[in-house]
Amino acid sequence: MTKTTFTPRDAICGSAEETTDFAPLFNQDGLIPVVATDKATGQLLMLAYMNAEALAKTIETGEAWYWSRSRSELWRKGASSGNTQTVVEIRTDCDQDAIELIVEQTGPACHTKRKSCFYRIVKNDGGEFSLQKVEDA
Amino acid sequence: MTKTTFTPRDAICGSAEETTDFAPLFNQDGLIPVVATDKATGQLLMLAYMNAEALAKTIETGEAWYWSRSRSELWRKGASSGNTQTVVEIRTDCDQDAIELIVEQTGPACHTKRKSCFYRIVKNDGGEFSLQKVEDA
Repeated sequence: MTKTTFTPRDAICGSAEETTDFAPLFNQDGLIPVVATDKATGQLLMLAYMNAEALAKTIETGEAWYWSRSRSELWRKGASSGNTQTVVEIRTDCDQDAIELIVEQTGPACHTKRKSCFYRIVKNDGGEFSLQKVEDA
Repeated sequence: MTKTTFTPRDAICGSAEETTDFAPLFNQDGLIPVVATDKATGQLLMLAYMNAEALAKTIETGEAWYWSRSRSELWRKGASSGNTQTVVEIRTDCDQDAIELIVEQTGPACHTKRKSCFYRIVKNDGGEFSLQKVEDA
């Protein structure tokens, strides 16, 4: 068990926007969406979720931990693939219901071996949709 | 009512990762998280949510529409502030449960008048957390 705890949401002083208290807002499933971006390039790498324990472990270890909704378990990013994320900076947004992780990404971020998970563009051909893969994503 | 519809999730051919069918996965509330990034700089601007209608309106109009969870209504980004988002590209991720909007942002993206909603860094002083504002965010 981790000892890291965050400010309870109902205990923040002032508005969520301007406070310097860190009071992350987890959703009804106890999760918060996390956007990982690349330190070197600023590129959007992936979107995943953390519960409070994953966020605490990320802060304590300096490596990205997430909550797998499909497997219902904590996972250390890259634990099996080796494609770890070293956390350079953690940010939160105006209403503190999302997290940005600025990371040094080892290898590709996506499990499909691509640098980013966002490797397909939505194309609209008169209401007919398709996805076009980006070669260098 | 919009006429735009997407491929039903259970009708996609092959895996969500490699298909060229656009079959966005909305959560149990009918929402999908959307990350807006700046076309010119790649900077992460904000994270918000769309329902199917907001996504359809975004595609049809070329301007970003979201679903406000607090107000339970569709909103066109910038409708009151003027800080609209012109959509340059729409992407989806490997498992098609998140959207990236690459936008030309008019004015600041954040309602606090900052360029990005992610303007605070989480600081950890021996287990005591605080948020430090980034001056140029």
